Amino acid sequence: MPKHLMKEVELLKKKILSLSARVEESVRRATKAVEARDGGLAQKVVESDIEIDLMEVEVEEECLKVLALHQPVANDLRFIVAVLKINNDIERIGDLAVNIGERALYLSAQPALGVQIDFHEMADKVQSMLRRSLDALVNLDSAMAHEVRADDDAVDKINHEMYEEVKVRLKKHPELTDTLIHLLQIARHFERIADHATNIAEEVIYMVDGEIVRHRPEDYT
Amino acid sequence: MPKHLMKEVELLKKKILSLSARVEESVRRATKAVEARDGGLAQKVVESDIEIDLMEVEVEEECLKVLALHQPVANDLRFIVAVLKINNDIERIGDLAVNIGERALYLSAQPALGVQIDFHEMADKVQSMLRRSLDALVNLDSAMAHEVRADDDAVDKINHEMYEEVKVRLKKHPELTDTLIHLLQIARHFERIADHATNIAEEVIYMVDGEIVRHRPEDYT
Repeated sequence: MPKHLMKEVELLKKKILSLSARVEESVRRATKAVEARDGGLAQKVVESDIEIDLMEVEVEEECLKVLALHQPVANDLRFIVAVLKINNDIERIGDLAVNIGERALYLSAQPALGVQIDFHEMADKVQSMLRRSLDALVNLDSAMAHEVRADDDAVDKINHEMYEEVKVRLKKHPELTDTLIHLLQIARHFERIADHATNIAEEVIYMVDGEIVRHRPEDYT
Repeated sequence: MPKHLMKEVELLKKKILSLSARVEESVRRATKAVEARDGGLAQKVVESDIEIDLMEVEVEEECLKVLALHQPVANDLRFIVAVLKINNDIERIGDLAVNIGERALYLSAQPALGVQIDFHEMADKVQSMLRRSLDALVNLDSAMAHEVRADDDAVDKINHEMYEEVKVRLKKHPELTDTLIHLLQIARHFERIADHATNIAEEVIYMVDGEIVRHRPEDYT
């Protein structure tokens, strides 16, 4: 890679990592807001969306700049295009954190359920997937990307279990329908964050190994 | 625009339009499969996913080829990058059609509900949004893109009404919980197709007017 291009690529990696760290923080806060029924924290997540959007636009503009000025080809071109696509996925994870934040806001104003639904395991797994998918991108590590892909099944399984749990409660407590459906959708939002992390991982695998593994529609529940 | 680049861009437009027509067909079939409780048709939608994925890969490879060979700058570069991103959105709409197809498959094996939920209006609106967002891309028509954006609110409204309807029935018929939640998720899938069409429209607006209007997280219900 030409030296001036290498410098730009390093800058780009830094920018996308800092966007991703910001989004990860948003997911963490949204999770905490649901669990602690913390409306104030939920509100912060919702408000942070603007900042994340600006960071995404900045990464995209940087990609366009690199394409226009350095006209990379072959692997370098593939890398820039991968960053463009991954940037999109990260921003949508930010949107999903906002969606979770909005539901947390609603739930914090409702009476507490007798038994809380535990999002901890799911949220932890999803955050770890996001972190590792970005590590895989920056280090061009397709083995790690394959690990992220494998984790998606675990998240789908947890999502399915939550669905079954919510269903049982819906039948028992029709008066809690609203709250339970919000919880169900929160689980789906987490599952979709995992899907985006999987997209990122699959993009890395494609870039590194040339193997197309992407494009599996979402799971069923 | 240089003549050889113009030729490539025309080819690219053709390819993305034919992908989009294929995806539109998938959405139409999935809708019909839900409404007619037609398991065979639902199965066809699920199976069509491979073909759509291959078409998406082809569009992406074409974009990379144009970038590498013609090294476009300014507006031409922005157009190719927009196609890359829009290509992604269209493929995800294809995935959502598959998700609807899978639920249709499940529902076709269940006893019919007393009263069907009518997805017709929602499905029509969503398909029209998809079609017009692609027309806006091909004709660089930001006015049409703005119309698509405005339609997203109507879809959100229908989705919200469906949610309220499902909620009422959940309380009345807890024994139908499974079926009703599938119907609820089908409405959400349609709403997400509308979101992707809106993303496409916002990408067109950004490209044509330089105005950033994208990045609104999903609606609440």
